[in-house]
Amino acid sequence: MLTALEKAGILVEALPYIKKLSGKTVVIKYGGNAMLNDELKEAVMTDVILMKYVGIKPVLVHGGGPEINGMLQRVGLQSTFVQGMRVTDQATMEIVEMVLAGKLNKEIVAMIQRFGGQAVGLSGRDGGLIKAKKRFELVKNEAGDRVPTDIGFVGDVVRIQPDLVRGLTEQGYIPVIAPIGAGDHGEAYNINADVVAGELAQALEADKLILLTDVEGILRDRHDLGSLISSLRIGDVEDLVEQGVISGGMIPKVHCCVQAIEGGVGSTHIIDGRIQHSLLLEVFTEKGIGTMVVK
Amino acid sequence: MLTALEKAGILVEALPYIKKLSGKTVVIKYGGNAMLNDELKEAVMTDVILMKYVGIKPVLVHGGGPEINGMLQRVGLQSTFVQGMRVTDQATMEIVEMVLAGKLNKEIVAMIQRFGGQAVGLSGRDGGLIKAKKRFELVKNEAGDRVPTDIGFVGDVVRIQPDLVRGLTEQGYIPVIAPIGAGDHGEAYNINADVVAGELAQALEADKLILLTDVEGILRDRHDLGSLISSLRIGDVEDLVEQGVISGGMIPKVHCCVQAIEGGVGSTHIIDGRIQHSLLLEVFTEKGIGTMVVK
Amino acid sequence: MLTALEKAGILVEALPYIKKLSGKTVVIKYGGNAMLNDELKEAVMTDVILMKYVGIKPVLVHGGGPEINGMLQRVGLQSTFVQGMRVTDQATMEIVEMVLAGKLNKEIVAMIQRFGGQAVGLSGRDGGLIKAKKRFELVKNEAGDRVPTDIGFVGDVVRIQPDLVRGLTEQGYIPVIAPIGAGDHGEAYNINADVVAGELAQALEADKLILLTDVEGILRDRHDLGSLISSLRIGDVEDLVEQGVISGGMIPKVHCCVQAIEGGVGSTHIIDGRIQHSLLLEVFTEKGIGTMVVK
Amino acid sequence: MLTALEKAGILVEALPYIKKLSGKTVVIKYGGNAMLNDELKEAVMTDVILMKYVGIKPVLVHGGGPEINGMLQRVGLQSTFVQGMRVTDQATMEIVEMVLAGKLNKEIVAMIQRFGGQAVGLSGRDGGLIKAKKRFELVKNEAGDRVPTDIGFVGDVVRIQPDLVRGLTEQGYIPVIAPIGAGDHGEAYNINADVVAGELAQALEADKLILLTDVEGILRDRHDLGSLISSLRIGDVEDLVEQGVISGGMIPKVHCCVQAIEGGVGSTHIIDGRIQHSLLLEVFTEKGIGTMVVK
Amino acid sequence: MLTALEKAGILVEALPYIKKLSGKTVVIKYGGNAMLNDELKEAVMTDVILMKYVGIKPVLVHGGGPEINGMLQRVGLQSTFVQGMRVTDQATMEIVEMVLAGKLNKEIVAMIQRFGGQAVGLSGRDGGLIKAKKRFELVKNEAGDRVPTDIGFVGDVVRIQPDLVRGLTEQGYIPVIAPIGAGDHGEAYNINADVVAGELAQALEADKLILLTDVEGILRDRHDLGSLISSLRIGDVEDLVEQGVISGGMIPKVHCCVQAIEGGVGSTHIIDGRIQHSLLLEVFTEKGIGTMVVK
Amino acid sequence: MLTALEKAGILVEALPYIKKLSGKTVVIKYGGNAMLNDELKEAVMTDVILMKYVGIKPVLVHGGGPEINGMLQRVGLQSTFVQGMRVTDQATMEIVEMVLAGKLNKEIVAMIQRFGGQAVGLSGRDGGLIKAKKRFELVKNEAGDRVPTDIGFVGDVVRIQPDLVRGLTEQGYIPVIAPIGAGDHGEAYNINADVVAGELAQALEADKLILLTDVEGILRDRHDLGSLISSLRIGDVEDLVEQGVISGGMIPKVHCCVQAIEGGVGSTHIIDGRIQHSLLLEVFTEKGIGTMVVK
Repeated sequence: MLTALEKAGILVEALPYIKKLSGKTVVIKYGGNAMLNDELKEAVMTDVILMKYVGIKPVLVHGGGPEINGMLQRVGLQSTFVQGMRVTDQATMEIVEMVLAGKLNKEIVAMIQRFGGQAVGLSGRDGGLIKAKKRFELVKNEAGDRVPTDIGFVGDVVRIQPDLVRGLTEQGYIPVIAPIGAGDHGEAYNINADVVAGELAQALEADKLILLTDVEGILRDRHDLGSLISSLRIGDVEDLVEQGVISGGMIPKVHCCVQAIEGGVGSTHIIDGRIQHSLLLEVFTEKGIGTMVVK
Repeated sequence: MLTALEKAGILVEALPYIKKLSGKTVVIKYGGNAMLNDELKEAVMTDVILMKYVGIKPVLVHGGGPEINGMLQRVGLQSTFVQGMRVTDQATMEIVEMVLAGKLNKEIVAMIQRFGGQAVGLSGRDGGLIKAKKRFELVKNEAGDRVPTDIGFVGDVVRIQPDLVRGLTEQGYIPVIAPIGAGDHGEAYNINADVVAGELAQALEADKLILLTDVEGILRDRHDLGSLISSLRIGDVEDLVEQGVISGGMIPKVHCCVQAIEGGVGSTHIIDGRIQHSLLLEVFTEKGIGTMVVK
Repeated sequence: MLTALEKAGILVEALPYIKKLSGKTVVIKYGGNAMLNDELKEAVMTDVILMKYVGIKPVLVHGGGPEINGMLQRVGLQSTFVQGMRVTDQATMEIVEMVLAGKLNKEIVAMIQRFGGQAVGLSGRDGGLIKAKKRFELVKNEAGDRVPTDIGFVGDVVRIQPDLVRGLTEQGYIPVIAPIGAGDHGEAYNINADVVAGELAQALEADKLILLTDVEGILRDRHDLGSLISSLRIGDVEDLVEQGVISGGMIPKVHCCVQAIEGGVGSTHIIDGRIQHSLLLEVFTEKGIGTMVVK
Repeated sequence: MLTALEKAGILVEALPYIKKLSGKTVVIKYGGNAMLNDELKEAVMTDVILMKYVGIKPVLVHGGGPEINGMLQRVGLQSTFVQGMRVTDQATMEIVEMVLAGKLNKEIVAMIQRFGGQAVGLSGRDGGLIKAKKRFELVKNEAGDRVPTDIGFVGDVVRIQPDLVRGLTEQGYIPVIAPIGAGDHGEAYNINADVVAGELAQALEADKLILLTDVEGILRDRHDLGSLISSLRIGDVEDLVEQGVISGGMIPKVHCCVQAIEGGVGSTHIIDGRIQHSLLLEVFTEKGIGTMVVK
Repeated sequence: MLTALEKAGILVEALPYIKKLSGKTVVIKYGGNAMLNDELKEAVMTDVILMKYVGIKPVLVHGGGPEINGMLQRVGLQSTFVQGMRVTDQATMEIVEMVLAGKLNKEIVAMIQRFGGQAVGLSGRDGGLIKAKKRFELVKNEAGDRVPTDIGFVGDVVRIQPDLVRGLTEQGYIPVIAPIGAGDHGEAYNINADVVAGELAQALEADKLILLTDVEGILRDRHDLGSLISSLRIGDVEDLVEQGVISGGMIPKVHCCVQAIEGGVGSTHIIDGRIQHSLLLEVFTEKGIGTMVVK
Repeated sequence: MLTALEKAGILVEALPYIKKLSGKTVVIKYGGNAMLNDELKEAVMTDVILMKYVGIKPVLVHGGGPEINGMLQRVGLQSTFVQGMRVTDQATMEIVEMVLAGKLNKEIVAMIQRFGGQAVGLSGRDGGLIKAKKRFELVKNEAGDRVPTDIGFVGDVVRIQPDLVRGLTEQGYIPVIAPIGAGDHGEAYNINADVVAGELAQALEADKLILLTDVEGILRDRHDLGSLISSLRIGDVEDLVEQGVISGGMIPKVHCCVQAIEGGVGSTHIIDGRIQHSLLLEVFTEKGIGTMVVK
């Protein structure tokens, strides 16, 4: 049981971090286990609202995860795969958008509202927010060459138009963004949520980009939690990739951070969304709990 | 083939209506056939954008229609009915919201963007826009008494908080709103789109409320299109209901208009969404093409 | 008799032009027959008000024409001429200013007000709007040399101070400007209205300069109305002058356009003020009805 | 020869009056000899500019005087009279407006500009400033009854719309207003300049109304300059009219003051425009130099 | 040693209080031991800055305490006393003001600045902030009657002009105010700091008034710390005074709270400034640590 | 006895200077005899208020003078001196700040308030206004070398943060500033008031810096008042120092002016504060009464 003085002390300890981030924008990619477990969900929403109340401007980008697969199964849409990647045809894209923009997005918004924040859910098709184009994955053909291959309505970011998001944060709302972009003819593209978060952080000249993941951060030795790399310079990334320290799904996440830093974002953070209030701990402590990628 | 002069003449004819509505808010309920037929869709969107460009602030509320049934069927959700009304359980509500807020809403937004407007899609759960509560339908029990009956997540409007919509129209966006409200715990309720449009028109102190329907307006003799009532005073509504001139599905629509007028909306219009550019014709001509309900 | 749909169609056709010019400034030189014929006057005023209501900022510069001569005759002022140019002495200038700023200017203002617009009449002496200096015309002397000759209070524009006009357009007024400038000691100079319109368009960073004239535009063959040059690049002007295609009174008008384009105005238009609603047709159709001079 | 200290002292003496009027509006009716004599003209303009620079918002309304008669003679317009009042037909009104709005108005503007102020000349037809209607003078008919008689385009003020004038004073301009109003169809009416000044002072919620006249103020004994009434309460006016102390042309001037005071103007002043800098002396000294009419 | 999660939990616990006070003004009377002990001083300043950073607008009013006596002694000023009250003559007042406005005030400002806040020190003579008048204490004369007695430059508040303080809080500064008022001729009066804080809270329409004292709050039994009255309604105050529960120096403090509540302040708090971070504990916990006086 | 016309004439004469300085900032160093003599004090305050009312933004920096010595004596603090300079230890600095910020500063503020202005007293420790560091005077040691010597809390300006002062002038207040700066740890330093005024003038991008002194200005021959140098270019300063024309205490004052000019201040003025209204005479006359140092 904490004494009143201990409680006061902790508030006081947070003061320098509150000061440093006051008025700054923080873009948070919210996905994985942090989106599935109810207790974690509440913790994330509370953290985001607290950030808002101490003067920070949080912006959420969420992913989709298993809900999309569930709904595709329910409607009986069977996907074809090209070397492990799902081909997203028109019918699949419709389901993807419904789940992202019509279910997950609105659930997050409703939870923030319920806990006392003011949130507005957006997709990248709203207000011209995310201009996208078809992504051509490099896929090995029979001759073994990697050739650009059409895998349907999977997109790359062409341009972020951040006015709508800025307008909303200035009016005190927390924007919650589904990672969908609009093509030249307004058609929807599914975009990787990490990429959307990174590009948005750059367009908003954010101070921080935080990726909530299902790992502890980058471990020098993946079997030793004590080997967590707390801080990483972008100049050291490629060496770590070659050494295999950064590997698999972590590679695009780190590249996303590198690009954000090069695009002017103050610092980027890969943290463990499975830890309650990891967001708060990362933002209001110097050391944080995951891996920070900086210039 | 029109001459240049004839063309100019028509623009000039529209001038008084443009002047009268400049800077005013017009809430449009968009549903029925106007949402299904591609040509009509484009005509509605073009009309809305034109309204925007001549200085009017249009706000769209859309319905759901057959798309919801289709998706319920696809996911194999069978509805139970109480005296003809579908009981909307939690699972059904999820599908309803996905279709409304994740599919139809974003399609409308994308179409406006494609035609050169700036639209933002919202559900009533965004920014605390629509506060709702469970609606208890009066249903006859075995004894023949009409008792309030729980039919699930079907809601009534408790309060509209129009700040978010106002902020967006002031920044030049066209708000597109799915008729969903948030209960005390943030849970979603499906609300009648006409009702949402009517309440929103009052909260926004709109100059006009326009309901796009699948009928010509109110006909004195339903078999005679020439008997269209162009203008109707709210004081005459109950007589016409008793006479059976206003009947069936038209009754709640007219009541919705009466309430809007009593709540301060300038004029309300029930027009035929099956006619191309009916919106434009109603707004930019004195007589209009449907039935106007006024004080 | 046009159907409602045809009418709606025409409004819809104007949409792209309305969009393109929304919020832009258009400077219109109003003179010649369009100022004399009552029907044409009303058409011009209606066009200007329509432009205003669809979000364009029109600014009118008017000429003087036969009214000045009429008044000079009435007061018995006989003019002396130097090679066809009237010498404007102090007494003449007084009459010129009275007619321009006290009669024509106020008549135009009153007509715009009557048709529902908000206009404010200005002379270039108001608010330091037009700084002028004496113009010395090159006149052949007895030796046949062209020497600068004092022809009285006829002026060149030294500098436009557009703050007053900008302030008024931002408050929703249509400025109507008499082509008079103020010399170093505040004395009035009569300035060519085309020149004032061109200079003002540059100072206001206008999107368009439109000169209402008494000809169809520039004809490649002056006897063939079908030979109208719809669009002309400023680089081709001097050739056409040498070829005699551009000649007489058209030369200064075209030079005025060239200078405006070089000063940053988006496009310039020489159109036939004798055609009703020519202004509207030029602004709201791509091809227009006269000659457009562009970069 | 004044010493520097004496000079400083005088500036210091003006301080309380500057403070009291800072940010306030002062409407000045400028007419009579003060408009004819060059030295007086310059003094008035300098006074007005000084007022402006010490934070007061002066608004000028000017009369017409002998210039109108002169021009009517020059163009050979002969007036008919009804019991001494000139019937102002359409042709006469045209000349009146040209002289007022096109000559005198612009001369005053130019003089203020020359002396370093920023002025904008307006007529009551600009921006809907003065709404007017025909004035019917009470004229004795043959039976000796006073019946309302049409004397042409002579008007009464129906309503002042002061937005344009307010907008200009807020942008730092000195509005200079010709006493012309617009009828229902935009037609011009000549209005008494004292009346325009009084109505304008009320509409602008002015702190002071100052009428520059050709007399010393109200004298208790018209043959004794020492009998000047410095301050007069509106409750005492009718007695003085009955006693004949206020008589002739002074009666409408005083009534104009009474109405202004009743309409909320702080104080009204009838001062001698024949004295150099009388305006400055009235504004920056407590006692002033003429007759102040107050509540 | 607290875990990260415990730390996060405490931040989260503070969230509702942060939300409730966001944007509100809190006036704090800072005096007694909290001003003398260095550790307490730092704790108070940190608390105030934290309040500022989470969106609250704190305003400090400080007392003088023993420093004034010390300086009076150093300069050899011997005070005369009337029934225990020091007579504050001109010479004494000079020292009082120097110590309050020149020493204590600036020390507090410097400490806030050093800890990262932005503070501005004011006396009530700045910007017309506190209008005061001489206070006449009721003193028993020889006949035993209590008669109003002049005890020098000791003042009552006549009027607070809060514009200056409001302007500073809106620009992000923490105003620090010495309890000195200005008389009609600008002369300084020493005013009780509790009274100044109470009046200021009313004038600023503050949400809270907090008096930092050297006692635990109001104890029902002064020998039993467990008998602290946590919350007290203003209607119950007079009974407690009669019962002797509120007595001595606590009476004016409680009256000051009652008056503030009646003047519209949301709640008032008498807390123990000898406890570290008592301010933070009072503001960010529901129960608080002292006595709250409410409506 | 001046006539009304003479009075008006003097106001008119000031007009061009009022125009030129309207909206500009003027920093005034107020010290010496002008601060001691009551009549001069009042004259300075009146001048400052008049400047304010005619649209100038005056900012006062005051010195300390004999009051500091008096108080040091009263509290029995004996100073040690190093080559004529007082060593300002902690105890001395406390007295210095009390006198400057708690006595003189507030007296000046109260006087401006009493005469109708709105003043706010600040020290450089308020709002981070003056960042300072310890000044090391060059003092000759026994070996005759000039070595930097610690003389206590005497400071140099490191940086001016003018936001607070700007905010106050924009709200209509006259800032009155005590020449004290804050060191890295918030500790107070006494700074030369001329230097503070000069640095502040640069930081505020002031139009004028005026130093009120106890001499006539710079005299070419110190025994001949007629040899006053009215205007001096900064390029000529060093020659005059070498010639001994500028000598003694005037050297740092002139250097202060030179630095201000190089830092962008429009003009600097060394004037005689012993002459009543010297400030007004300098500001509102072209020639002024002292020495102007310009580029």
